[in-house]
Amino acid sequence: MYIPTYDDMLAAHERIKPYIHRTPVLTSSYLNSLTGAELFFKCENFQKAGAFKVRGASNAVFGLSEEEAKNGVCTHSSGNHALSLSYAAGRRGIPCNVVMPRTAPQAKKDAVRGYGGTITECEPSTTSREEVFASVQARTGGNFVHPYNDPRVIAGQGTCSRELMEQTDGLDMVIAPIGGGGMISGTCLTLSHMAPEVQIIAAEPEQADDAYRSFKAGHIIADDAPNTVADGLKVPLKDLTWHFVSNHVTDILTASEQEIIDAMKLTWQRMKIVIEASCAVPLATIIKNKDRFAGKRVGVIITGGNVDLDKLPWIK
Amino acid sequence: MYIPTYDDMLAAHERIKPYIHRTPVLTSSYLNSLTGAELFFKCENFQKAGAFKVRGASNAVFGLSEEEAKNGVCTHSSGNHALSLSYAAGRRGIPCNVVMPRTAPQAKKDAVRGYGGTITECEPSTTSREEVFASVQARTGGNFVHPYNDPRVIAGQGTCSRELMEQTDGLDMVIAPIGGGGMISGTCLTLSHMAPEVQIIAAEPEQADDAYRSFKAGHIIADDAPNTVADGLKVPLKDLTWHFVSNHVTDILTASEQEIIDAMKLTWQRMKIVIEASCAVPLATIIKNKDRFAGKRVGVIITGGNVDLDKLPWIK
Repeated sequence: MYIPTYDDMLAAHERIKPYIHRTPVLTSSYLNSLTGAELFFKCENFQKAGAFKVRGASNAVFGLSEEEAKNGVCTHSSGNHALSLSYAAGRRGIPCNVVMPRTAPQAKKDAVRGYGGTITECEPSTTSREEVFASVQARTGGNFVHPYNDPRVIAGQGTCSRELMEQTDGLDMVIAPIGGGGMISGTCLTLSHMAPEVQIIAAEPEQADDAYRSFKAGHIIADDAPNTVADGLKVPLKDLTWHFVSNHVTDILTASEQEIIDAMKLTWQRMKIVIEASCAVPLATIIKNKDRFAGKRVGVIITGGNVDLDKLPWIK
Repeated sequence: MYIPTYDDMLAAHERIKPYIHRTPVLTSSYLNSLTGAELFFKCENFQKAGAFKVRGASNAVFGLSEEEAKNGVCTHSSGNHALSLSYAAGRRGIPCNVVMPRTAPQAKKDAVRGYGGTITECEPSTTSREEVFASVQARTGGNFVHPYNDPRVIAGQGTCSRELMEQTDGLDMVIAPIGGGGMISGTCLTLSHMAPEVQIIAAEPEQADDAYRSFKAGHIIADDAPNTVADGLKVPLKDLTWHFVSNHVTDILTASEQEIIDAMKLTWQRMKIVIEASCAVPLATIIKNKDRFAGKRVGVIITGGNVDLDKLPWIK
């Protein structure tokens, strides 16, 4: 297992710069006064392809040699990695095959196809996803870019917190959602070198709290097919992301489905930005644990904005 | 009738700076490629109180002498001016009484009360609004800040296009929605002096096209109680805004209800920002009249983001 380094992150940032946005950091006086903390929202919902995942995907795609790239790339993903990899492959002009759960939001499937990716559907469980993927990979011979358990991807995701640190005058904490752990691992990779005093908090839905339970148990616990409105956070930790989570994460906090939906709607209402339910988990945990964050300068990573606008969780 | 000048706009900008945001200008490669134009979105949905109207309202409130301010301010408004005036009055610590149609979005009523404003409801027609307002003004003795037909308000709204010009490297056109004409008049005031070569286009719902018909007829035509999803654009032109519209506007374009809703949803989907239906009218007319805008650098004023998230026009 190759553990990506700080230098890998720096090299990734150089490599992907032509294909990503340096996304803005927004603040909200309303949310600051509500939480008692000073919040700095790193808006990866404004990123190319609508999510931070384009950082890791672009690093993997543009780091391939001509020989390695000739059969294109392939992956399985609950959504944003699929469309980010399709975007990056499209920019390089190579094929991209993705396995997606049939229950993934229609907006994400449409976006994958819009970027030129080819979708093969599976059932919404880890087991089915891995089975269907094995056959797609065997058939196409594409380079496998795992959505998070891949050093190239983690190095790419680490570029986000590098920008966040450059865009703010010092932070006490950074909080990000945790699913498979790619963003959190990249954050650990970057901050443990660049700003080791900054606490790293992961935020997870109660209904998909495998990372929380893994963290408490000291080993990976994986659930098959958890169910949560935060559809990007259903996947389990793997060895590489577990390495970063177990060594560098300060704590993992959880929020209920209703708390996540309320924080999502509040962000839309007050900040006027479209964010996914997954990215509302950090704010939900901050509102729930005000004492923990009060008086602190907190970086909050808004991971993506690819929402199915026809199916909003607060409208029945 | 006092016609506000370019110097009034400059003085307004100095006066209101502590109370407003210098809002960002966003671009979208997707919308550029869809329209063939280069679009620069001035995001007043990120403005204090969620709309550009806080510029004019703050200029009026903070320009009052102590004597003039002692009974507070009052107004009638379909929404954003009401909450902007409440915000500005709250910052100065004086009372604010507003007359709002009972059909105004709940989110806007809640926001007015949140800023400390007092609401008196009227029927959703110009006639009823003016009647109810007369009694509120007589009772409170507050300084009347008209939502648009007021030189202080127009000078304040003009600060928006000043920033837009500073934030872009030259524009061929600026397009903004037109209701009563406050934003368009401020845009005319500023650009006719600062950049007279820039065309000024007003965008209006077909179902509330009184400004379009006035522009063609050469005199003000006012409708009582037009009906459109663009709830900020139902009010008619008045003498002061007619002065600017008739002298400086290049053209008025219109869009249907469905075109407005489609452009609104497309903006949410692609730009990941929450905008009101009113602000989608310019993009709707650009998509409808591509030849007119192709190859041009176009400033698009996104006027506000105060949406009732429980009632989205594309969800039945």
